[in-house]
Amino acid sequence: MMDAMSAAELEAALRETGAQRYHHLHPFHRLLHSGGLSKVQVQAWALNRYYYQSRIPQKDAIIVSRLPDVSSRRIWRQRLVDHDGDDNDAGGIARWLRLAVGVGLEADYVQSATGILPATRFAVDAYVNFVRDRTLLEAVASSLTELFSPGIIAERVAGMLAHYDFVSPDTLAYFNNRLHQAPRDADYALAYVKANAHTGAEQQSVIGALRFKCDVLWAQLDALYNAYVAPGHVPPGAFLTGTHSRAAG
Amino acid sequence: MMDAMSAAELEAALRETGAQRYHHLHPFHRLLHSGGLSKVQVQAWALNRYYYQSRIPQKDAIIVSRLPDVSSRRIWRQRLVDHDGDDNDAGGIARWLRLAVGVGLEADYVQSATGILPATRFAVDAYVNFVRDRTLLEAVASSLTELFSPGIIAERVAGMLAHYDFVSPDTLAYFNNRLHQAPRDADYALAYVKANAHTGAEQQSVIGALRFKCDVLWAQLDALYNAYVAPGHVPPGAFLTGTHSRAAG
Repeated sequence: MMDAMSAAELEAALRETGAQRYHHLHPFHRLLHSGGLSKVQVQAWALNRYYYQSRIPQKDAIIVSRLPDVSSRRIWRQRLVDHDGDDNDAGGIARWLRLAVGVGLEADYVQSATGILPATRFAVDAYVNFVRDRTLLEAVASSLTELFSPGIIAERVAGMLAHYDFVSPDTLAYFNNRLHQAPRDADYALAYVKANAHTGAEQQSVIGALRFKCDVLWAQLDALYNAYVAPGHVPPGAFLTGTHSRAAG
Repeated sequence: MMDAMSAAELEAALRETGAQRYHHLHPFHRLLHSGGLSKVQVQAWALNRYYYQSRIPQKDAIIVSRLPDVSSRRIWRQRLVDHDGDDNDAGGIARWLRLAVGVGLEADYVQSATGILPATRFAVDAYVNFVRDRTLLEAVASSLTELFSPGIIAERVAGMLAHYDFVSPDTLAYFNNRLHQAPRDADYALAYVKANAHTGAEQQSVIGALRFKCDVLWAQLDALYNAYVAPGHVPPGAFLTGTHSRAAG
């Protein structure tokens, strides 16, 4: 049996996990941010990532359905508003669609998800299943990658605007909102796991959930790299094959 | 194989199901509305029904998690706001707690759910499981008892105010909100099932879901009647037994 850490030690272990495993370290992101991708490769990224975005409110609604008290459900509900929008705001999914259209994809094609890589679907669906099937503590902990997103967002926005003439500030509007939403969400989830992971086993399950989520993000970039950078094995039916090659623009 | 009905025929079949099976027909409700219950019996009703209320947002969050598109999730999300509240409104669960406290129960005891009847828990949990495990169409259809709630609410509020001196309009504030929320919700769910139940089998599954939900409500009143009216078999640990008998007031 593993000894329990202090809450501060748990937080340090989580931050170390992100430092070693978050997808800012992936070669595809380095290419994306440094201007090393073609327009078609950026389109492939936007298209596949849309599927991830489109499943986030369903993932968060599962967490809401599992939270037993009114006040924590109210707080987590804000994530549904952020992504699905409300009467005043179109929401994050709509903003990501604007990004995809902004880099030259057709909205219907993006929303259909017919051109995404199978590995994208498997990774994203694995995330939704994880949140449904694991403990509530692990479900909450799997959102902790948000701890590390402000850094990558700042780097991404600056890099993409500097290097791609087909990318405008309006296209990247999605990230403006995430810069304040992600820290607020991550603060709540971090406080939650620090308050609720008491035993060594619970703490290890929290770290494991964050590693799992890092894997979910990493696997999506692996799939993009393999299909669209090197060796360039685009799976049957995915973006740039068959009848949808017009979407390459 | 069953022939498909028209949408209007399906609606008529659903309304007929409610006319025959909704819990307004249950003897416990007749007693409640006509002043035929003691204060302790009204407390038992309020206590057990609180557990049902407390699980409704979790049930609705499951439906949100299963709805595949932004616009239907946004609409269904309003039910979470109605029950869990927001910065401007305490929400339906808080209003039901006020009802329970208003008839003389202690808030902590109500929220703990330790004194509810096992049959209440089984029925409510069966409802949550149904919404998670059945088709999305059936999950939506199971909410259609809302079609019949305005009638019972009007009867209940008038009857309880007339017959019980320990019940005030403020105690029954929960029902004021439901009088406009329930028809709005029922209209949406009814339109949804009419638009999405095409085959005879799908339509029968919709009717079956409504019958199931009527059973969930009916079983809760059966349990109350059996325990607190006749024959009066209060199960071990439930309200009015053992150390919680002080809550009888």
